[in-house]
Amino acid sequence: MDIATLRERHPDHWMRSTAIRVLALDAVAAANSGHSGMPMGMADIATVLWSKHLKFDAKAPGWPDRDRFIISNGHGSMLLYALLHLTGYEDMTLDELKNFRQWGAKTAGHPEHEYASGIDTTTGPLGQGLATSVGMAIAEESLRARFGKKVIDHHTYVFAGDGCLMEGVSHEAIALAGHQKLSHLILFFDNNGISIDGEISKTDSTDQPKRFEACGWHVQSIDGHDPEAIDAAIEAAKKSGKPSMIDCKTHIALGSSAQDTGKGHGALTDEKLIKDTREAYGWSHGPFDIPADIKSWWEEVGRRGADERAAWNERLDDLAGGKRKQFDAAMERTLPNKLTSTIRNLKKQISEDQPKDATRKSSENVLKAVNPVVKEMLGGSADLTGSNNTLTPDLGVFSPEDRAGRYIHYGIREHGMAAAMNGMALHGGIRPYGGTFMCFSDYARPAMRLSALMGAPVTYVMTHDSIGLGEDGPTHQPVEHLAMLRATPNMQVIRPCDGVETAEAWEVALRNTDVPTVLVLTRQGLPTLRTKHQSKNLVEQGAYILAEADAKRQAVLIASGSEVSVAMEAKALLEEKGIGARVVSIPSFELFAKADESYRRRVLPAGAVRVGIEAAARLGWDRWLTGERGRDAKAAFVGMDSFGASAPAEVLFEKFGITADNVVAQVENLL
Amino acid sequence: MDIATLRERHPDHWMRSTAIRVLALDAVAAANSGHSGMPMGMADIATVLWSKHLKFDAKAPGWPDRDRFIISNGHGSMLLYALLHLTGYEDMTLDELKNFRQWGAKTAGHPEHEYASGIDTTTGPLGQGLATSVGMAIAEESLRARFGKKVIDHHTYVFAGDGCLMEGVSHEAIALAGHQKLSHLILFFDNNGISIDGEISKTDSTDQPKRFEACGWHVQSIDGHDPEAIDAAIEAAKKSGKPSMIDCKTHIALGSSAQDTGKGHGALTDEKLIKDTREAYGWSHGPFDIPADIKSWWEEVGRRGADERAAWNERLDDLAGGKRKQFDAAMERTLPNKLTSTIRNLKKQISEDQPKDATRKSSENVLKAVNPVVKEMLGGSADLTGSNNTLTPDLGVFSPEDRAGRYIHYGIREHGMAAAMNGMALHGGIRPYGGTFMCFSDYARPAMRLSALMGAPVTYVMTHDSIGLGEDGPTHQPVEHLAMLRATPNMQVIRPCDGVETAEAWEVALRNTDVPTVLVLTRQGLPTLRTKHQSKNLVEQGAYILAEADAKRQAVLIASGSEVSVAMEAKALLEEKGIGARVVSIPSFELFAKADESYRRRVLPAGAVRVGIEAAARLGWDRWLTGERGRDAKAAFVGMDSFGASAPAEVLFEKFGITADNVVAQVENLL
Repeated sequence: MDIATLRERHPDHWMRSTAIRVLALDAVAAANSGHSGMPMGMADIATVLWSKHLKFDAKAPGWPDRDRFIISNGHGSMLLYALLHLTGYEDMTLDELKNFRQWGAKTAGHPEHEYASGIDTTTGPLGQGLATSVGMAIAEESLRARFGKKVIDHHTYVFAGDGCLMEGVSHEAIALAGHQKLSHLILFFDNNGISIDGEISKTDSTDQPKRFEACGWHVQSIDGHDPEAIDAAIEAAKKSGKPSMIDCKTHIALGSSAQDTGKGHGALTDEKLIKDTREAYGWSHGPFDIPADIKSWWEEVGRRGADERAAWNERLDDLAGGKRKQFDAAMERTLPNKLTSTIRNLKKQISEDQPKDATRKSSENVLKAVNPVVKEMLGGSADLTGSNNTLTPDLGVFSPEDRAGRYIHYGIREHGMAAAMNGMALHGGIRPYGGTFMCFSDYARPAMRLSALMGAPVTYVMTHDSIGLGEDGPTHQPVEHLAMLRATPNMQVIRPCDGVETAEAWEVALRNTDVPTVLVLTRQGLPTLRTKHQSKNLVEQGAYILAEADAKRQAVLIASGSEVSVAMEAKALLEEKGIGARVVSIPSFELFAKADESYRRRVLPAGAVRVGIEAAARLGWDRWLTGERGRDAKAAFVGMDSFGASAPAEVLFEKFGITADNVVAQVENLL
Repeated sequence: MDIATLRERHPDHWMRSTAIRVLALDAVAAANSGHSGMPMGMADIATVLWSKHLKFDAKAPGWPDRDRFIISNGHGSMLLYALLHLTGYEDMTLDELKNFRQWGAKTAGHPEHEYASGIDTTTGPLGQGLATSVGMAIAEESLRARFGKKVIDHHTYVFAGDGCLMEGVSHEAIALAGHQKLSHLILFFDNNGISIDGEISKTDSTDQPKRFEACGWHVQSIDGHDPEAIDAAIEAAKKSGKPSMIDCKTHIALGSSAQDTGKGHGALTDEKLIKDTREAYGWSHGPFDIPADIKSWWEEVGRRGADERAAWNERLDDLAGGKRKQFDAAMERTLPNKLTSTIRNLKKQISEDQPKDATRKSSENVLKAVNPVVKEMLGGSADLTGSNNTLTPDLGVFSPEDRAGRYIHYGIREHGMAAAMNGMALHGGIRPYGGTFMCFSDYARPAMRLSALMGAPVTYVMTHDSIGLGEDGPTHQPVEHLAMLRATPNMQVIRPCDGVETAEAWEVALRNTDVPTVLVLTRQGLPTLRTKHQSKNLVEQGAYILAEADAKRQAVLIASGSEVSVAMEAKALLEEKGIGARVVSIPSFELFAKADESYRRRVLPAGAVRVGIEAAARLGWDRWLTGERGRDAKAAFVGMDSFGASAPAEVLFEKFGITADNVVAQVENLL
């Protein structure tokens, strides 16, 4: 539908949708940066969706039963900001739009979750919004099963462009959604035929509708500017019983001289272009000037859900038994009091029994104790259930037939799993965890980074954390991954050394609700080192003195995970030689870095030589070895400076020199 | 087709294919580890393919015009090792099979490129083999356009399982192959309905044939055990004019009690199971015992290509003009002599002109000079051509219509691009480079790791390398990525500070043919700092003294990329205060680490305080700051300890304190 037809047939709709378009043009022009074309192309869809379908109340952005709205093509952020402003979200003032992409503004270049209300997730890295939305739709199904349709019954709407659908993660997301028959998930494909390099015909020939059908989706193709077609398609999508993809033929940068071009993707800042476009739109108002009638119509849209929300509040109050309390606890991420004693009892038991479990097995034991207590736990694995030890007997399997199941067989989809977990955590009411081999954190990287950027409390269960994986060889043996994860801001990486530390690590993961946690766990069995029960959570401090020197302290051995027992062996050998050695267990660099400086100096005093031991790259260790300000200590590192190899684990530790004997040699060399 | 029917109708085929099965069973049993099921399920396909279609000569594994054979489901490595042994690859002895998955063996858990001849690529991380094969098929088309069909005319055959097809990268690979109409690419889908967690019905409902059709592939569905059907399908695939997917219904762990189960995926080591399976197979020979008639039949298969290769050698010798020499140079990765002067002249010009270019622009200038000289260069970008500055005028665009084009519009497929580049580099004859935003190295991580593990000389052009990206905000601003890449073994990460260093960086990338290189480049303009021409490549040393202290040396400022100019400004301010400061440019940690220790000590002498400056995470810097053995220096770091933000670049540097003033303050604080 061209502009003339649209203006003639739907004059009111036209001016309302064009309010979005001109705000996008104005904000991008003011910033001299941004993306004008997507908002101009998708404004019609957004106007119909928000005014006729989207369940929301601008005055209550956190309403748990609201529909979720995600622009996976996040560069079109001004579309979202314009909608939030027009419908009356209080923090999205006109000044914020004028400050688009400036320091301190809520209107970042791409939508950043928690910068402003109404931003359901951070998007920008393409495909992430779509994959995250699958998790939101799973969360919705799961919570409906738990609390009932009266309080959980909403939809997740996603906008996505060609870029999102070209990214590989889109396949994982689409296939997972189709398999799980997530019928409350509706995707609008912004089929404008353009990407940054120009016409899509340069890069892609995929028949997207057919592709989605192959993955079990309901599919429609419409004119993405025709309000009646958009409305009808949404109605049909809701009734389809499947995830639904609406293939919307749109014009990027509609009505401008850059329409349908690669240029239209980016920042349209040319004065004449903007002037001409306003004329083509029949929009006579100045920059950032929205006529009162249009603004008030949009504000009415923003209030549309108020009654529904009031009714919902009543239904919530009517929830029987303890359900209301459970609902609030789930949404507020409040943990049951019982968790404290659950963890403490488990630790005590381990200290007494002193098993030689792999920490992945220890993690399973924690989950066996925690999952029945914390009903928000929703676990899964990327097709390594038996290896990641992520399934506990009480959970049941989430499927179209059993939405009450609390375990997801994600398939071989690490990236899709991570993004879906982000969606669950952001949706609220769910504490997701999921497993894969540590080495395949590579596949999940883009979504894991978003967990950290958004502070989404997702727990990654990364097992087979070193050459200790053994025969599968270097493709499966992480070397650089600890450094990669530790370098990521706002990510809590914990590599426990035994069952007790594993229990403490899980407790830290669950109690810290504003960061993701990566649990780095072994394949191979490890001795219990924390043999004296302490109720205090020592992992919380990041590092601590596991064993003090017996003879005069000349060395400090610092190790994490499976190498802590190597340090303990080395200590015994050193003490035999009259060299006193302290062993420091350092399960988490990040937590230790957060501890008081005085505590850190107490744990790692100047003077004694230091040896770090970790079956991984040295990068990142020097801070603790040579001292934070330098000049603290002479130091060495026992770890990996190459990729691993294929052989039994014990052979590999020997061949790569990660042994107590080598630690002793390093100490003697430094003294 | 069940075993009884197969044995009856195709008795010879059965025993030959079963030789693969029993070798897999025997090797896995000997290792007590591995994956028996895939070789048992795909042996029929492999037997038909290798004996009737695959163009190869076991005595000449490096024959450039051989067909490539990739098992993307790399856990089934024993299938490949068995084939190599049976057909007479000299280094794949029976002893190697007996040493499956042991230290030093060529038979690693997953196929490792260069461990043995005949392993065309490393596989194991699922989906990678498939995505790599797309690059091999591109390389074949490209080289055919350059050297003619008489010397380049082969196929790329890929085995892939459900896992490969669930991984997101499969979509990028399939869509790219379909769009590029890579008709010499033939994929066998091991459709056995099983993954580690059990039946695929737990995790996936994708209609794979329909999905491939939607991506432009030719598709057939066959019984993967019927030799006639397999043969006919390969014939039809070759004639299809499209990439072809053969959906092979197979039985994992065929004929064992674990057939068609998740257990069948893994290591079948139970003695009774193995005994019963041999009986079901009608195989009466002992472990690793292959009857002479079967072995000699397979060896004949291994010689099948000898005559063809001899004929090919003649055709190669007949190549007209300088083509034969060019062919050898391309295959041997020999660079033209002219490259030296090309780079030197460019450096001289930059030192004279002293432009204020962004290093991404400097990189474009290098490519403009190098691409016409090095005809093996095949560039591309993941839909950021204008931003990555990767396209030069001479290249032309590679497409189904123009196979001579040397630039690929990869689409928004960072992961697929990286894997395809691996394929091109491994195929030989091509020096691939490709661009994206540095932040989206996240998407490409699994394939980049394989570049490093295989030593594939791929050049990654990663632009927009810090908060200097500006308004696009934290989702697009790398912080932890330098640490991630530097921690990866065998990866050459270079972050040049100006045009001269960029030219040197490209030279290092091209001359080192056994590592991948990541060029880390700015969006924003930078002053030329190397204003005095030196023909010597200083980047090659990793770090060097860019400017010596004028006053008595009290401080050493160490910086990379865009922060070297910050260091130079700080130096000027410090010298004004009478504090002598040396500036060390450190474009590459890895190269500096490889330099002589005496050189390193000369560049970074003990005593003076040190400040590191880099708009990225500190992790990894301490080695250079506090000294490699500790106790060298008091030190501080000026960089990022959080994610970035959305604002103009200069505001961000100011707000995050990456300024000359802050460097001065840090020095004064340390003194």
